[in-house]
Amino acid sequence: MRYEGKAKKVYATDDEQRYVVEYKDDATAYNALKRGTIQGKGVVNNAVSSVLFEMLAEHGVPTHFLERISDREQLVRAVEIIPIEVIVRNRAAGSFAKRYGVDEGLELDPIVIEWCYKSDELGDPPLNDATAVALGLATPDELEDLFELASTVNDTLLPYFEERGLELVDFKLEFGRTADGDIVLADEISPDTCRLWDLASGERLDKDRFRRDLGSVEEAYQEVYRRVVEGAEPRPIAGADA
Amino acid sequence: MRYEGKAKKVYATDDEQRYVVEYKDDATAYNALKRGTIQGKGVVNNAVSSVLFEMLAEHGVPTHFLERISDREQLVRAVEIIPIEVIVRNRAAGSFAKRYGVDEGLELDPIVIEWCYKSDELGDPPLNDATAVALGLATPDELEDLFELASTVNDTLLPYFEERGLELVDFKLEFGRTADGDIVLADEISPDTCRLWDLASGERLDKDRFRRDLGSVEEAYQEVYRRVVEGAEPRPIAGADA
Repeated sequence: MRYEGKAKKVYATDDEQRYVVEYKDDATAYNALKRGTIQGKGVVNNAVSSVLFEMLAEHGVPTHFLERISDREQLVRAVEIIPIEVIVRNRAAGSFAKRYGVDEGLELDPIVIEWCYKSDELGDPPLNDATAVALGLATPDELEDLFELASTVNDTLLPYFEERGLELVDFKLEFGRTADGDIVLADEISPDTCRLWDLASGERLDKDRFRRDLGSVEEAYQEVYRRVVEGAEPRPIAGADA
Repeated sequence: MRYEGKAKKVYATDDEQRYVVEYKDDATAYNALKRGTIQGKGVVNNAVSSVLFEMLAEHGVPTHFLERISDREQLVRAVEIIPIEVIVRNRAAGSFAKRYGVDEGLELDPIVIEWCYKSDELGDPPLNDATAVALGLATPDELEDLFELASTVNDTLLPYFEERGLELVDFKLEFGRTADGDIVLADEISPDTCRLWDLASGERLDKDRFRRDLGSVEEAYQEVYRRVVEGAEPRPIAGADA
């Protein structure tokens, strides 16, 4: 194994340009202070992420995704991850709402694209362009690419989720550099990395159900799977209040 | 009195376009968790800030400063403070070094100009341009003005302090809007708001001596007064190690 993260394992293959990513059911929150398992999460996130990466590629976003090869595994291009978490926020929620003392759900105009330094040890602190460059995390040209790609991802995902009865509140992206020096979207896009609110009820259909002990965690992941992977009509999740 | 801050009081005058600022000896650090008194600080900061504001005005930076009217008081233009602390960093130090896990003194290339949301309650969190606009703290044009003005202040202060045997490591600026809607430099520039390291010895000649209990606090402020206000030759401060 090449790397084990909090929610995924990454394996080398015979081809040094290809990795296999395995999606686990393990869940962590608040920089791993909270740990648990969400039954079936790995299967959901592998499938959802595969669908979204394919869709984004059709919209001109280069990604590391090559092929879903099993329930929990996908084949991806080998990349070196840029240590910047790119967070796109359409509404205030989570750490943003807390950090700036605003209500969750506040619409952000303009939308906010935020860099955080990917460091568990430091708690993923936010940083600006000059800091990212001065710390050697990325070049100014790369930051411009990240910004443009993140904007395109948001512009593409917003209507896509809306058609499936989901409001995309915010999400986290990671990018990688290929051996050729290209920047491609990496990591995953799933209910682990997006805040998705049911358009009809406002119910949270994402990892906040786990973070905040809201119950019906598995059901929320399954409902996103139904809508995104199976193209099923939205329905409320069992046993959950908004 | 119009307002009492941690280190200054602001009084209205008969002219609604003019305030009087009184500099206190009170010192606080770490968002007022640490409190104390630095004898003579108000006199030093009033004089140093007056000299620097006059010098910056000659270099084309509009400021709120009008006149030093006593040892502890200056007359300034009435402004509405923009709730963004503008931090200019030539080297990593203090909260920046801690936040990003780098050594104090690390040279920053490019230099970093950082916005923090001026809020004691929230602990002055850093924010980026889009967040500042979305939260209604400033317009994009104002942020551009702040950036340009902060750059000019740094370009002007760096050689000015160097000629006086001081390295300008970082500093915090605040800006205000006048009744006419002009943006001017406000608050103060002093050893309370700048990190100043003695070029010869590396000794800290600023509020870090108070924050970190390094001793010779008053002596450090007096030495900055000697160099900046009196134009005296640098000398080491008594009883201090670097």
